[in-house]
Amino acid sequence: MNSGNSPKQTIRRKIDMSKMPNHYDPVEGRAVELDDLPWVPFPEAFSDGGIRWKLLNVAPELGSWAAIFDCPAGSSFASHHHIGPGEYFLTKGRMEVRGGENDGGETVTAPAYGYEPCQAYHGRTFFPVASEFYMTFLGPLNMVDGENGQTLALVTWQAAQAVWEASLEQASTNA
Amino acid sequence: MNSGNSPKQTIRRKIDMSKMPNHYDPVEGRAVELDDLPWVPFPEAFSDGGIRWKLLNVAPELGSWAAIFDCPAGSSFASHHHIGPGEYFLTKGRMEVRGGENDGGETVTAPAYGYEPCQAYHGRTFFPVASEFYMTFLGPLNMVDGENGQTLALVTWQAAQAVWEASLEQASTNA
Amino acid sequence: MNSGNSPKQTIRRKIDMSKMPNHYDPVEGRAVELDDLPWVPFPEAFSDGGIRWKLLNVAPELGSWAAIFDCPAGSSFASHHHIGPGEYFLTKGRMEVRGGENDGGETVTAPAYGYEPCQAYHGRTFFPVASEFYMTFLGPLNMVDGENGQTLALVTWQAAQAVWEASLEQASTNA
Amino acid sequence: MNSGNSPKQTIRRKIDMSKMPNHYDPVEGRAVELDDLPWVPFPEAFSDGGIRWKLLNVAPELGSWAAIFDCPAGSSFASHHHIGPGEYFLTKGRMEVRGGENDGGETVTAPAYGYEPCQAYHGRTFFPVASEFYMTFLGPLNMVDGENGQTLALVTWQAAQAVWEASLEQASTNA
Repeated sequence: MNSGNSPKQTIRRKIDMSKMPNHYDPVEGRAVELDDLPWVPFPEAFSDGGIRWKLLNVAPELGSWAAIFDCPAGSSFASHHHIGPGEYFLTKGRMEVRGGENDGGETVTAPAYGYEPCQAYHGRTFFPVASEFYMTFLGPLNMVDGENGQTLALVTWQAAQAVWEASLEQASTNA
Repeated sequence: MNSGNSPKQTIRRKIDMSKMPNHYDPVEGRAVELDDLPWVPFPEAFSDGGIRWKLLNVAPELGSWAAIFDCPAGSSFASHHHIGPGEYFLTKGRMEVRGGENDGGETVTAPAYGYEPCQAYHGRTFFPVASEFYMTFLGPLNMVDGENGQTLALVTWQAAQAVWEASLEQASTNA
Repeated sequence: MNSGNSPKQTIRRKIDMSKMPNHYDPVEGRAVELDDLPWVPFPEAFSDGGIRWKLLNVAPELGSWAAIFDCPAGSSFASHHHIGPGEYFLTKGRMEVRGGENDGGETVTAPAYGYEPCQAYHGRTFFPVASEFYMTFLGPLNMVDGENGQTLALVTWQAAQAVWEASLEQASTNA
Repeated sequence: MNSGNSPKQTIRRKIDMSKMPNHYDPVEGRAVELDDLPWVPFPEAFSDGGIRWKLLNVAPELGSWAAIFDCPAGSSFASHHHIGPGEYFLTKGRMEVRGGENDGGETVTAPAYGYEPCQAYHGRTFFPVASEFYMTFLGPLNMVDGENGQTLALVTWQAAQAVWEASLEQASTNA
């Protein structure tokens, strides 16, 4: 008997492909040459002394981003927590992290590598001499009003991208 | 003098937008109801005793994936390493991980949660009674020929997706 | 000639083991059975209608955490952004995410799985019937005063752990 | 009446602290100055032309690691897949990735940044001139016998650490 109602057909009807999980392909690779990118000012709300930066990449699924920072002698970043691990590669100069070695933190001279863990608090990251570092961030920076203070801004990959793109826009408009 | 070669114009010419980092938007949310998805056999090369599964999601940028497994009494998974952390939620039954509690590992009874760390070796994951568990994997499973043995297969999110989609295809074709 | 000052010895002297990267071992596995853990109230500052929860795990290096939530009919979570992807497994009931399907979001009925992407905004997650869900979070919840509003609290793995442990403490003290 | 069996006492007895999830503290920060670390040969099984490297860090929970590579003119890495995203910062020279720009991939000149996605296949990474790059890896490298070939070795953070530490040992012993 060739019933139109066999168990197999019952199964087939139950597979509604529109309700299956989405199919995904691998994401694409990407590369930038740094000399193609302009240095733009890093927001003064979060830094002091003329720090400039270039955004190199954002990865929206994981929430990671990569950037390079140009830090004049005497410049510094304002207080922040790393919400997720960050890794830096100091290509030039000297960086005092978590207060520097005279205050319980670390002072490193280029070339140097550092791992800043999830939840690390950086009261003030200071550059005693002209310095430059590349950094990858997994998750945002939480700019705060002191170690246990209020959040002033959450610098996610999306916020970083918005600030960077606004700077490019302005650089083109002003020209 | 109003030269056509001011510093600002020099800057503008240097911003070639095609060489800037790509712009990315957040990825989309997604959800599936489990009763819409068929149970399909998990590959016998990697399991024994009739384990079935449903793939729930893959995340290609991070390389994570999520699935639910239906494990009859007496079924088991073959030897593997977790290449990245995995978290399970045992909704039904009992699971013996890393040999079970009689062999240095753990035996958990539902409802239970477990965290299997990056590099964890699971010689044999065994289900003494009918069981079901949901699991999220950050990175692949490395199916191996014993703890220090050769890689038999690397079950990445992409391999998992390929196996799942082939099973859906076959279920429709056979119907 | 066997000089005490050969190039090889020079090399050896340059390897100061105290300055090498730290050695790390894999982290340990862990498991909990849910009936061993008490239900405790989820902070009312972030939820409404009597939601209770159990913290199942935190992973401090990556900043991920896992929990299960018991949500009475009519309960809801306050406005938040997911700072990093989150995956839920709805074991019971019904959940309206991102406004529910009548407001541009999704409504799912158990058993269901969902992936909430990095930066997802949940204006109000509502439970029309008694529900329960297990969820893994990569990164914190940013509790906010509306979609573009100020951060009210950043629920990191560490904050989640602190709240949970304070609840356990209180449950023991009150007994 | 002071019953030994009040509801509150019943609750208290149910909280067996040994069965609660473990308490975790944040992981520690770390930094290394590159001149303190020796250059050691990268395994010839996976590279050609005298590549040397320094391991800078491993992060065992997530399975990430960071290293710097010194690549003479004409050197190359053998075929591999990235099992997880990788980000490089080319500090010197020129790198041809995924075949280079003449073969569908990219050729970048220092200073340059690149993002290699999860599952990226690198048939041969070639350095036409003396080059140096720093790279962070989330997850292992899968050294393979061609794009769809067998796994020759899985270079996890743990394998990378073992190879590096063996090289340090040998450098000290040989001296």
